[in-house]
Amino acid sequence: MPAVEDTIVELVEAFGVKFDIAAVGVGAAGFVDATRSTVLFSPHLAWRNEPLRDALMSRIRVPVVVDNDANAAAVAETRFGAGIGHRQVLCVTLGTGIGGALVIDGKVYRGANGMAGEFGHMQVVPDGHRCECGNRGCWEQYASGNALVREARELILVDSPMGHGLRDRVGGDLTKLTGPLISAAAREEDARAVELIAEVGTWLGTGLAGMAAAFDPSCIIIGGGLSEAGDLLLTPTRTAFARSLVGRGYRREPVIALAALGADAGFIGAADMARSAARRSRRTRRRRRERATRRLLQRP
Amino acid sequence: MPAVEDTIVELVEAFGVKFDIAAVGVGAAGFVDATRSTVLFSPHLAWRNEPLRDALMSRIRVPVVVDNDANAAAVAETRFGAGIGHRQVLCVTLGTGIGGALVIDGKVYRGANGMAGEFGHMQVVPDGHRCECGNRGCWEQYASGNALVREARELILVDSPMGHGLRDRVGGDLTKLTGPLISAAAREEDARAVELIAEVGTWLGTGLAGMAAAFDPSCIIIGGGLSEAGDLLLTPTRTAFARSLVGRGYRREPVIALAALGADAGFIGAADMARSAARRSRRTRRRRRERATRRLLQRP
Repeated sequence: MPAVEDTIVELVEAFGVKFDIAAVGVGAAGFVDATRSTVLFSPHLAWRNEPLRDALMSRIRVPVVVDNDANAAAVAETRFGAGIGHRQVLCVTLGTGIGGALVIDGKVYRGANGMAGEFGHMQVVPDGHRCECGNRGCWEQYASGNALVREARELILVDSPMGHGLRDRVGGDLTKLTGPLISAAAREEDARAVELIAEVGTWLGTGLAGMAAAFDPSCIIIGGGLSEAGDLLLTPTRTAFARSLVGRGYRREPVIALAALGADAGFIGAADMARSAARRSRRTRRRRRERATRRLLQRP
Repeated sequence: MPAVEDTIVELVEAFGVKFDIAAVGVGAAGFVDATRSTVLFSPHLAWRNEPLRDALMSRIRVPVVVDNDANAAAVAETRFGAGIGHRQVLCVTLGTGIGGALVIDGKVYRGANGMAGEFGHMQVVPDGHRCECGNRGCWEQYASGNALVREARELILVDSPMGHGLRDRVGGDLTKLTGPLISAAAREEDARAVELIAEVGTWLGTGLAGMAAAFDPSCIIIGGGLSEAGDLLLTPTRTAFARSLVGRGYRREPVIALAALGADAGFIGAADMARSAARRSRRTRRRRRERATRRLLQRP
């Protein structure tokens, strides 16, 4: 994906005019390996075993850190956002799909390949909707921005009178139907848009109850574009969660909160990772200098 | 549950005749709290906020450790069994339901309430079979010993000629139909028993692929009574897993292995926890003695 690389390099050069850039952090929409250098696979982009970090470092000449975009957002929310004070934080980022991360004691749990947290590709409906990942019935086909748009489109396409309001909003042009547009319609009390978001919220809440059975977090953070629907999403999510959690009544239930940093969480997390990388790099350089100095002084 | 407590106390007393008992470990089929003293909830037993450890310690007078039975088995398999050498191990124990544990760097991940690992209660079929936990469509209703028995029973009850072989094995008495009996029939090449176990394996493999998407383990261990079906279960499990894993072809896939310690894993894990508890208790006593001695020596 040279286009994405070019864009990153251009951005760095543009910022470099005004700022002193010490390191670059990238939150990539794909599976990043455990060394945080290569994008192994991306369900929604053309990356396959892409050595993104090295490709960028050869052009940018400052330390580059690559991580999964949902991991970056999760780091930010846990350190600076809705997860402050929690030790087991489950983050889901609802956009095209479901990004996810489990943060334990402030650190993202990465798994054996660095691919942990792909909650969106757990099957929740046998033989369900086809997913970009190649499977069927993945959770993100039911609880994501894409799912919301697909359902709205279907409602319009069957020519249900229920869909006429949304149809008229886009002047009949289905390509103009987006998550933000449906959210805006819901905020303006379009009853169908409210229903569609509630459906997504119900799938989200039921799935999160399963995640809570598995991970038992003390805090669940919902971020990504779709989270901007706010209570229109959160209320049905919480209702479905409360109805589905195993052992309910015999456990402390986790807080379910909207991401505090909004759509910026990924940027802030990537910047925070870059800051750490810059610090590490400075420390390494300092140690190298000190070693060299010592060697000089020890010469007879 | 005084009956369970009585049985534990009787066992300890019986063993005490021949052995010097330093500590007792209990693997309990329920949600154990983070302090490992109280069984908060058990889907299959009558325990509700049961202070099991203290109740036992008042009668046994040696250190007692209580943990979830699947956690105990997972500790044993990771330290002494099929998971040796792996840092991210996912364990599932197939019996009445699905017990589970995620072991990270040799330690069971416990979550905020100590309830993590209840994978069996993630919903895999919307409006599916009713589960003892109160919900519907839980994974363990499709991939457990109980699920196998239910399916066999149904096959017989619809009076399908396909079910006559199994029916005749129990002389028409459905109460005699058990997991081990169906496994034995499958090993004797009863084609319907083979099919039923393969169905369970397929549900298991698909669900494990979802677990792998979430946790990205390097090793998955299948234990519990049903695992004694061996390859009859494992082969369809691996096939479904390989077909369903997200990013397949772009990641190292985890090893899927049968538990090496068999049905004893839970006992061995509980015993290992008891050994650690006894060691801790000895260390505490020694330190206390040393402190007391120092105080005596410092007296003027």
